[in-house]
Amino acid sequence: MPASADRAQAVVAFGGGHGLSASLQALRLLVADLVVDDLTAVVTVADNGGSSGRLRGEFGVLPPGDLRMALAALCGEHQWGDTWARVLQHRFAGHGEMNGHVIGNLLIVGLWEQLGDPVAALDWVGRLLGTTGRVLPMALTPLDIAADVRGLDPDEPGRLTTVRGQVQVATTDGVISAISLDPPNPLPCPEAIAAVHAADWLVLGPGSWFTSVIPHLMVPRLRDAIVGSDARVIVTLNLAEQAGETHGFEAADHLAVLVEHAPQLRVHTVLADARQVGSGLADLEHVVRATGARLVLDDVALDDGSPRHDPVKLAAAYTRILGGA
Amino acid sequence: MPASADRAQAVVAFGGGHGLSASLQALRLLVADLVVDDLTAVVTVADNGGSSGRLRGEFGVLPPGDLRMALAALCGEHQWGDTWARVLQHRFAGHGEMNGHVIGNLLIVGLWEQLGDPVAALDWVGRLLGTTGRVLPMALTPLDIAADVRGLDPDEPGRLTTVRGQVQVATTDGVISAISLDPPNPLPCPEAIAAVHAADWLVLGPGSWFTSVIPHLMVPRLRDAIVGSDARVIVTLNLAEQAGETHGFEAADHLAVLVEHAPQLRVHTVLADARQVGSGLADLEHVVRATGARLVLDDVALDDGSPRHDPVKLAAAYTRILGGA
Repeated sequence: MPASADRAQAVVAFGGGHGLSASLQALRLLVADLVVDDLTAVVTVADNGGSSGRLRGEFGVLPPGDLRMALAALCGEHQWGDTWARVLQHRFAGHGEMNGHVIGNLLIVGLWEQLGDPVAALDWVGRLLGTTGRVLPMALTPLDIAADVRGLDPDEPGRLTTVRGQVQVATTDGVISAISLDPPNPLPCPEAIAAVHAADWLVLGPGSWFTSVIPHLMVPRLRDAIVGSDARVIVTLNLAEQAGETHGFEAADHLAVLVEHAPQLRVHTVLADARQVGSGLADLEHVVRATGARLVLDDVALDDGSPRHDPVKLAAAYTRILGGA
Repeated sequence: MPASADRAQAVVAFGGGHGLSASLQALRLLVADLVVDDLTAVVTVADNGGSSGRLRGEFGVLPPGDLRMALAALCGEHQWGDTWARVLQHRFAGHGEMNGHVIGNLLIVGLWEQLGDPVAALDWVGRLLGTTGRVLPMALTPLDIAADVRGLDPDEPGRLTTVRGQVQVATTDGVISAISLDPPNPLPCPEAIAAVHAADWLVLGPGSWFTSVIPHLMVPRLRDAIVGSDARVIVTLNLAEQAGETHGFEAADHLAVLVEHAPQLRVHTVLADARQVGSGLADLEHVVRATGARLVLDDVALDDGSPRHDPVKLAAAYTRILGGA
């Protein structure tokens, strides 16, 4: 659906983990301001670590952690939802078998087992929290990320090695060249495809670039929907490199590897933090120009100096972008 | 508060596990029929087995399982509450670390850790399920049941041995003579004491007699509240002996051991199933007479022949008793 500034718009945000949380906390504010009237989060399902990895290994289900975080991020500021969100985000401590497990992960897996429908179960959690918007998995098949990594073989630094698993990819000592999914053609989530078709705007990032953002472009039918969509695509760049997966990456590198993974993707707007880009501006402008996108430099970082997006500033930036400013 | 037939009445039901569930499913129907307007379940907190025992061992919390079952039993028949009740009752299968754990137990423990108030946490679950009535623990201290058991020493069958732990007591090969609690003077639940003071009727049983029903009379301040209350006490007898804790018990024996544990208790009505009592009627009448109670024989068992109460029949029996019929 083409975007228009004089009516509320439908937005789909892609990501996983903390980056998507920041994105959703921002977009939730646009719903409150009536700029957006339909918000969908599409979440990576490749996590193989922590509580999610243990539950996935034990039950063969989708890893629930990033889905749970997205649901909590969309929870409104009312006592009912806020209390349940805190409970669902609660992580058991101690030294026993429950150590590290998160209540919401267990609840989501229980709902999946009880209802037998992954999307209906997430909708139930959404109703419990009173979320603004819907949370969907990017695929209905649990996935593994595999990365071609350079620099792991000291004798042959240029040789590509395959690193498998989200945790392993995110913490590699080498330089990631490209990622793929295993299985390569997972079952897409029909509701996510439908949301893309109905969207005015698609938002990719911020987030762990190779393990939370780019994977959405590697699910073939989801990628087809994204690149075939009339919706305008916003790429929100990270505020810093991430040790491991994007070590040494400038803003331009983030955009370049994303486009390399989906050459048909037409990017409408690249949103970057002006201060973060710094001396990398010329390189970024070069890559942005090559993609045919427009570059928006804004102030979207938290004031505490940490490389995290401020949801309020990010909301202001999105409001300007969606309004055509 | 004295009971009166021409207004809705306050009821407190004591027990734990499946027996209390049947009792609450019945009493919930009395609320629907406006016979009862205030229903409170007070639940044993001595379980040391299964999911509850593991969580209690890991986190030092009250065992949540019987509390969760009571909450589910009070859940109304609406899609929202019914779905959440099914999810909270869901038990993980498989062969991993979660095997045997129940979602609702994990959720309750998470709420306890997050809110820091055991009663407030149970009220939150009650609101989630839309329960009719409130569920409270009989004490705020996790307890162990200890039993004096005869017949465990083949050389000296009359010798009393102490068996410790709810599971161990419930499955003893010997004959239980009396139980006690460890610690003997646990922190009572003030809301449970207040509910007893405000009640028109107190319902003890059905349920595992020594491990779910009698323990309520062994929490000193709760027993003081019960025996000092103006409320009328109903003792609902079990439909059969239970292998282990009440092996060989007739109806009369159940009532006798209960009264032995709380000699000051004034019982108003003893409710027994007519068919189950059978040839034990004379003995039962004898013990009932000695307690000063009246005996009500009714048809309260499931028609399938299993020794379980039928909530609808039990509700009809309670309605007659509360109405003074």
